[in-house]
Amino acid sequence: MSSSQSLQPHNFKDLLDSVEAFLFDCDGVIWKGDELIDGASQTLDMLRSKGKKLVFVTNNSWKSRTQYAEKFKSLGISVSPDEIFSSSFAAAMYLKVNNFPSQNKVYVIGGDGILDELQLAGFTAFGGPGDADKTIDWKQSGFFEHDKSVGAVVVGIDPKINYYKLQYGTLCIRENPGCLFIATNRDAVGHMTASQEWPGAGCMVAAMCGSTQKEPVVVGKPSTFMMDFLLEKFNLSCSKMCMVGDRLDTDILFGQNAGCKTLLVLSGCTTQSDLQDPSNNIQPDYYATKVSDMLDLSRA
Amino acid sequence: MSSSQSLQPHNFKDLLDSVEAFLFDCDGVIWKGDELIDGASQTLDMLRSKGKKLVFVTNNSWKSRTQYAEKFKSLGISVSPDEIFSSSFAAAMYLKVNNFPSQNKVYVIGGDGILDELQLAGFTAFGGPGDADKTIDWKQSGFFEHDKSVGAVVVGIDPKINYYKLQYGTLCIRENPGCLFIATNRDAVGHMTASQEWPGAGCMVAAMCGSTQKEPVVVGKPSTFMMDFLLEKFNLSCSKMCMVGDRLDTDILFGQNAGCKTLLVLSGCTTQSDLQDPSNNIQPDYYATKVSDMLDLSRA
Repeated sequence: MSSSQSLQPHNFKDLLDSVEAFLFDCDGVIWKGDELIDGASQTLDMLRSKGKKLVFVTNNSWKSRTQYAEKFKSLGISVSPDEIFSSSFAAAMYLKVNNFPSQNKVYVIGGDGILDELQLAGFTAFGGPGDADKTIDWKQSGFFEHDKSVGAVVVGIDPKINYYKLQYGTLCIRENPGCLFIATNRDAVGHMTASQEWPGAGCMVAAMCGSTQKEPVVVGKPSTFMMDFLLEKFNLSCSKMCMVGDRLDTDILFGQNAGCKTLLVLSGCTTQSDLQDPSNNIQPDYYATKVSDMLDLSRA
Repeated sequence: MSSSQSLQPHNFKDLLDSVEAFLFDCDGVIWKGDELIDGASQTLDMLRSKGKKLVFVTNNSWKSRTQYAEKFKSLGISVSPDEIFSSSFAAAMYLKVNNFPSQNKVYVIGGDGILDELQLAGFTAFGGPGDADKTIDWKQSGFFEHDKSVGAVVVGIDPKINYYKLQYGTLCIRENPGCLFIATNRDAVGHMTASQEWPGAGCMVAAMCGSTQKEPVVVGKPSTFMMDFLLEKFNLSCSKMCMVGDRLDTDILFGQNAGCKTLLVLSGCTTQSDLQDPSNNIQPDYYATKVSDMLDLSRA
């Protein structure tokens, strides 16, 4: 395993020359919570001005692609929904490419982003925010009903997680023959606010693994499921792409799994000492303090 | 691995002659939800009349030992709190034998049973039902405060699980140096009502593993932590005990781990085909349809 190089004038030039598309993670790379990371907008402008294609690959399933485009706009960055690949979209595309029967329903533990993307793809989905206030009752005479036509349970980050949803999803997976168990991603924690990390989708997904004793199909990073869509869209080989992210075990691993170049930025959840710790066995090609290091280097 | 024997007149006599204490699981063995299993009460009377010691070892942390004794009483069975070893009690005893500093606090994800046992043992505990209605807010300016003096997080079954509790416990484990992570048990599901299984403590424990990326100390079955207390109490060798339970991966494994004889009853979550499935590698010494098979055999 070779160790990572700090991004410098000479290797940045090599990177720019060899890469035609930059794939960006968002949280911890472009923004932290609702705050834009310093210089991110100008860096994206610089890369576009050099003819590079930009794609935003995010594990956060809370929003749909349209909602993500609105978030970019609110931060002063113009991005088309077509440039956004969220794990909510990935979950819908996974069902689509696997010919999920349209008469079957999808139960969602997660946010509106997943429900919206599933409905856009033509599926009938329920649960999510609609089950946020539901409670259970362990009355002996009671019976918890669930829909036998549910053929997939999609689990993403859910700040309104409750026992009702966990029981609903568990019954579908344990009792509906062939029911799929799909995780948008398994991030342990994420920067849901600028100053702190909070339990991520990995928490809700693990809860469902605990009760079902099954492992999910993961569609977000570091799974390369999304890469098939990117390849088709851009008609580029993976070696002409660079994945830029703040997490070793999702972003960088995703890039490496797909055969992309990889750039770690230290503006999110990974520090330089995490990167250089002997226990870390994921080494990106390059690392930089933040995306705008590329802007500085392009002016150097 | 030898396969299990069905309990019959000859081997039941051998079992009775060789065993001085019977350890019973409760759910699926003595009762299902709030319904007594047919013949359980008379079977316990018969064993007591033959001079056998009885102990009830339950992974359900929802109740304290006193609350369990009340449940037995409500079902017409007289049991002393001293005969009950619940995983709520085990969690408190784990802290006690490990000299947990009394100035440190314990955060609880679970029920009053855990809080009661911790307080009886002299510890300061909070969380649990008191945090059932708390919500979180991902406002950018907000900050989720947690008590830096929390030195242990105890996780058990929690039908009021929510994101607030998950974030609280996660911050304690990730940010308070040396904070212990204790699981009452990891049962995937349990018969919280007579007709259906519901997510068990394994669901909440897994959620915390997902967000903390740490593994807990498990104090309930199949961990043999409780066995030290039983040995001290009865001054018996484990080979003179028989563990009676309905779960292979907790009850029977617990008995085997401790060197007890083991009797599986098919009145709970395990069927005869589960037992005899080639994928099952946990074989009890004996199996019976329900505890009252012992009563029938004693009369034969």
